[in-house]
Amino acid sequence: MKLTILGCYSATPRISAHTTSQVLESRGHVFLIDCGEGTQMELRKHKVKFNQIKHIFISHLHGDHCFGLIGLISTFRLLNRETDLHIYGPKGIKELIMLQLKLSKSWVNFNLIFHELKSSDSELVFEDDKIEVHTIPLDHRVYTNGFLFKEKPFDRKLLVEKAEARNIDVAYYRKLKQGHDVMNNDGVLISNTDVTTQGAISKSYAFCSDTAYNEAIVPLVKNVDVLYHESTFLEAHADFCAKTKHSTAQQAATIAKKAAVGTLILGHYSSRYTDLEEFKSEASAVFEAVVLAKDGLTLSI
Amino acid sequence: MKLTILGCYSATPRISAHTTSQVLESRGHVFLIDCGEGTQMELRKHKVKFNQIKHIFISHLHGDHCFGLIGLISTFRLLNRETDLHIYGPKGIKELIMLQLKLSKSWVNFNLIFHELKSSDSELVFEDDKIEVHTIPLDHRVYTNGFLFKEKPFDRKLLVEKAEARNIDVAYYRKLKQGHDVMNNDGVLISNTDVTTQGAISKSYAFCSDTAYNEAIVPLVKNVDVLYHESTFLEAHADFCAKTKHSTAQQAATIAKKAAVGTLILGHYSSRYTDLEEFKSEASAVFEAVVLAKDGLTLSI
Repeated sequence: MKLTILGCYSATPRISAHTTSQVLESRGHVFLIDCGEGTQMELRKHKVKFNQIKHIFISHLHGDHCFGLIGLISTFRLLNRETDLHIYGPKGIKELIMLQLKLSKSWVNFNLIFHELKSSDSELVFEDDKIEVHTIPLDHRVYTNGFLFKEKPFDRKLLVEKAEARNIDVAYYRKLKQGHDVMNNDGVLISNTDVTTQGAISKSYAFCSDTAYNEAIVPLVKNVDVLYHESTFLEAHADFCAKTKHSTAQQAATIAKKAAVGTLILGHYSSRYTDLEEFKSEASAVFEAVVLAKDGLTLSI
Repeated sequence: MKLTILGCYSATPRISAHTTSQVLESRGHVFLIDCGEGTQMELRKHKVKFNQIKHIFISHLHGDHCFGLIGLISTFRLLNRETDLHIYGPKGIKELIMLQLKLSKSWVNFNLIFHELKSSDSELVFEDDKIEVHTIPLDHRVYTNGFLFKEKPFDRKLLVEKAEARNIDVAYYRKLKQGHDVMNNDGVLISNTDVTTQGAISKSYAFCSDTAYNEAIVPLVKNVDVLYHESTFLEAHADFCAKTKHSTAQQAATIAKKAAVGTLILGHYSSRYTDLEEFKSEASAVFEAVVLAKDGLTLSI
């Protein structure tokens, strides 16, 4: 997996502080997560090929997470896109986009497929043979979901020379890659581990923005390799969290610790802070493996 | 008048090619004209004080002219704006903005006053004692208006020493500034030109984007000091104009010539062109005083 942070600030976009948007590349997919105003320009800056984006996940309908969506869809149209586009987001998102297309008489010539979400339980919203995506219900001022991206197990790596030496018919190679023991041409059962080694390791990424401190998500993000958890405030301003339903860096770290994740990424910083290192210090006191999101940051997972 | 071009390109915003938005400063007003995606960031870059913008004019509901509006309104709200905001634009603009505010549960705490336009005739849409703003009906794929900003006559400059020497009561100074002759304390009629000189000269600016070649606008923009007229294409691609209802640089210059304007500004260039000087050459062959719009360009009118 490769994660690119296009924007990681809250509220209003500024020239060098873009609002939330991320690109997650995983097993041939290019997923766009949230789409603040100006996201299409950040996509160009990071040379993300527009046509490879087939699934867009919108956490909630606050502007700093979705105001760039209609512009991106319109640009897809102007570029004569033909590829289907799936949009996952809160109920209402379809009405919002369709009204804008109607008023501008700009009907798209590709399939625009909305998957409107309204459940307060985690749901499987996308699945193919390589990855599954689940919602993570969050606790915010409006209906909000995080998203969990979970790669399915990779095939085991077949050691072809060893398989040949053991006289296994090539028809069984697929089963071997899937981890099964197989019978060879001499009627002998060959143990899978004799002719395969561990394939690539499946990774998982959980995106959680925006939310108040919410332990209910812990089982959902348990053991993920990387958790992005919003930290709009520092503990010094913890009282703002109740009203705005956001989290502090310490709270994000507490979730990371309870869920035993690999790495925690912090982001969605309030513009009141100039020194982001304070977020890292605060979170690190609770959970060690902390990374600060920055616009343009790329991480291999 | 001072005009700042925030963005002057058509279709989709790119990192160094912003879609249409302009700021016109005139006699204490700061008017925003069109509002493509990312306009709020360009306003910050050019240090335009958000609170001074009280009137926003939207020509039409294509994305490259209006997708930044909801973000700007949301930012005004986050900055705790209290000043009234007037929005002039095609019918539908209110529904569009209100739906987005509703879905994000983000009601503004200032008066948001929509002036929805639907007439195909030129209308006076704003007027105070210093300036008037009229619509300029344009010919585009969707309902579109340009806008004519016309300063009212400035007061004449009173030569106080001369007025005193002629024994004129100060109560008449206002009438003198307005250009009237007045009776002095000795019952003698004093000619206005004896005690005043010409005040500042009223200016006018016409914004016309987007439109097919349309001679019907000539009487409306007659003799304006500056005309911005879109030139999406060069004559080499004039055949695109019929389908897209845009103009060529030559057509824009023809309108400028017929209307005997002071200066023509070209803009709304298609991204197919890399050398914008060709627009200038093409237009200059018809009408001499041509300026190429560029993002960030500021002009005194």
